[in-house]
Amino acid sequence: MDTEISSTVALTQDLIRRDSVTPEDKDCQLMIAGRLAQYGFKAEHLRFADVDNLWLRRGHAGSLFVFAGHTDVVPTGPLDKWQTPPFAAEIHDGMLYGRGAADMKGSIAAMITACERFVAQHPDHQGSIAFLLTSDEEGPAVNGTVKVIETLQQRGEHIDWCVVGEPTSSHQVADVVKNGRRGSLNGYLTVQGKQGHIAYPHLAANPVHLLAPALAELCSEVWDEGNADFPPTSFQVSNFNSGTGATNIIPGTVEMIFNFRFSTEVTDQQLRERVEAILHKHQLQFNIDWVLSGQPFRTATGKLLDAVKAAVLEVTGRKTELSTSGGTSDGRFIAPTGAQVIELGPLNATIHQINECVAIKDLDTLSDIYQQLLVELLVK
Amino acid sequence: MDTEISSTVALTQDLIRRDSVTPEDKDCQLMIAGRLAQYGFKAEHLRFADVDNLWLRRGHAGSLFVFAGHTDVVPTGPLDKWQTPPFAAEIHDGMLYGRGAADMKGSIAAMITACERFVAQHPDHQGSIAFLLTSDEEGPAVNGTVKVIETLQQRGEHIDWCVVGEPTSSHQVADVVKNGRRGSLNGYLTVQGKQGHIAYPHLAANPVHLLAPALAELCSEVWDEGNADFPPTSFQVSNFNSGTGATNIIPGTVEMIFNFRFSTEVTDQQLRERVEAILHKHQLQFNIDWVLSGQPFRTATGKLLDAVKAAVLEVTGRKTELSTSGGTSDGRFIAPTGAQVIELGPLNATIHQINECVAIKDLDTLSDIYQQLLVELLVK
Ligand SMILES: [Zn+2]
Ligand SMILES: [Zn+2]
Repeated sequence: MDTEISSTVALTQDLIRRDSVTPEDKDCQLMIAGRLAQYGFKAEHLRFADVDNLWLRRGHAGSLFVFAGHTDVVPTGPLDKWQTPPFAAEIHDGMLYGRGAADMKGSIAAMITACERFVAQHPDHQGSIAFLLTSDEEGPAVNGTVKVIETLQQRGEHIDWCVVGEPTSSHQVADVVKNGRRGSLNGYLTVQGKQGHIAYPHLAANPVHLLAPALAELCSEVWDEGNADFPPTSFQVSNFNSGTGATNIIPGTVEMIFNFRFSTEVTDQQLRERVEAILHKHQLQFNIDWVLSGQPFRTATGKLLDAVKAAVLEVTGRKTELSTSGGTSDGRFIAPTGAQVIELGPLNATIHQINECVAIKDLDTLSDIYQQLLVELLVK
Repeated sequence: MDTEISSTVALTQDLIRRDSVTPEDKDCQLMIAGRLAQYGFKAEHLRFADVDNLWLRRGHAGSLFVFAGHTDVVPTGPLDKWQTPPFAAEIHDGMLYGRGAADMKGSIAAMITACERFVAQHPDHQGSIAFLLTSDEEGPAVNGTVKVIETLQQRGEHIDWCVVGEPTSSHQVADVVKNGRRGSLNGYLTVQGKQGHIAYPHLAANPVHLLAPALAELCSEVWDEGNADFPPTSFQVSNFNSGTGATNIIPGTVEMIFNFRFSTEVTDQQLRERVEAILHKHQLQFNIDWVLSGQPFRTATGKLLDAVKAAVLEVTGRKTELSTSGGTSDGRFIAPTGAQVIELGPLNATIHQINECVAIKDLDTLSDIYQQLLVELLVK
């Protein structure tokens, strides 16, 4: 069965069989560095706390193109629900099953084999090529890409173009690429009331009641209308807790956590001010701790976007669709350096789920697209 | 120091020194039954599950007057915060300290000594006198007064007048009596949403957002205006919980518990219907479990109320104030039998608190009031 599989599929299997649940890397990066060393890539292993990061670079001339990704995977969930063991990397009916198959060991394998073929064919290509790999994308993302970028910036090493291998495709490989992501802002709100016995409400101040009209207003507020690149900014409460469990006590506080996914039509500062204005308008005593997870970014034009479109069309015959929807990715740490950033990877239908899988022919197509992208940028 | 204390104060000390935290009785009831046996009271010990109850009755003729109360006390809280040990019953500067001093071992002692003096003076009084004591008032109140009342009703034993010894006084003994209590109705609400990732709100339905406008409406609703006997019905949320703790998940449900303290201007059925109508109006998918803790009751007129007013005036020279505010009491189980029910006891400033105490002169005053009440009802 496995006798005719491609180099990309075999490499994906090798990576899946290393059960590198965040923040583990299980020597994925060491294996990759060893493999690409033959093609002139110089490895720099950057370990921060318990996170392995790899910066692999070939060449120092001209513009720098970077493949970015992560070797870590999310936990498997209940093992007995998997039809094949999640780290066995078995192939059935043209599908490769395993944790990380789609997110994103398949992409990493496709990037590596694309480079191998490209360098073999164009040993004297223009510019430089690098890999930025971390084992902390699915976790706190504190000691991963963000620290590598800091290291690069401190020494003045600039990324011009970056492709992140996140699974962006919807129905067919490369039918959708992400040319940006919304910003993400969390608010940790505490509303102060006054605890008391439920039979004596005039001696207490129920913070749920105090917050209720402000909450209704926050939930119905239109924060912006979005724009050509971004859907409208969305506000969502993730957690709301008040009360001691006792049914005869008016609670003293409300703790509420909420999140904005925001477009470029508002700034995080404007969102903070607008939320606080609504809370003040309702005369609440409150405290908010704000945590900005990422600014919105987009790559609306430029040579990278043109090259991606051209490569997808060349390999698949299809026009790709641009999107900025969905969750955050490590692109949020790379884009602020001024790099053009596009995310392009396999179908995302099964990621983070039981029986995660990827079509083996899609891996080969993806590798061809990545290779053609290198041609578009570094040869033409 | 203790050489000149009254019989009422000494009996209160004896009761406090029995550390009868709910559902314990620590033979308080046995001691009381023994003591009143000499005065013609026949004891019936009614134990249900882990709760001791005592029905003590003197006489079978005419109208039945009942002193009702509880021998159990709430827990002490941190012992090191008490200035004197909570079960030592020490007297300092005219105050008797201890758990249960005000709620309500002082009242029970005052009732007992009042009966002793009354029966000695009026051995051939009209009507009958009884005590209804439980050790489960501060707890679930399942195997206490409610079960004794069931027992009495099954055998056709009817209570005409009942004084409950709960601490109703505000600044001076008997300045306030309760001639009723509001009803209490709890709602356990679950609002159904659809869980999802916070980056994809269009694939989820946030139940906090769905509930927000309905909650604002529930909190601002005027349920009634109250009446001469009752303050307006009050709605209070006691618990509100939603979210998994994760900041990137839209919660699937909201769990909310709320309570009505309601007047006689609405029925519990009307409240249920009005809440559900508001929830339906906002097109919520929800479930509510309703738990009725007690119907409102009042003793607006009648011989008992007149006698209480007269006795307070006779003993203290003051007019008492009628109130229906505050929490529930076991009066809610006695009033539905058709009995006239008044609550009258010492100052409630320190009940359920550290260093609970009662003025020893107040105990004697209270005993005098109870005695005069017996005179008003059973002699005149
Ligand atoms: Zn990923
Ligand atoms: Zn009590």
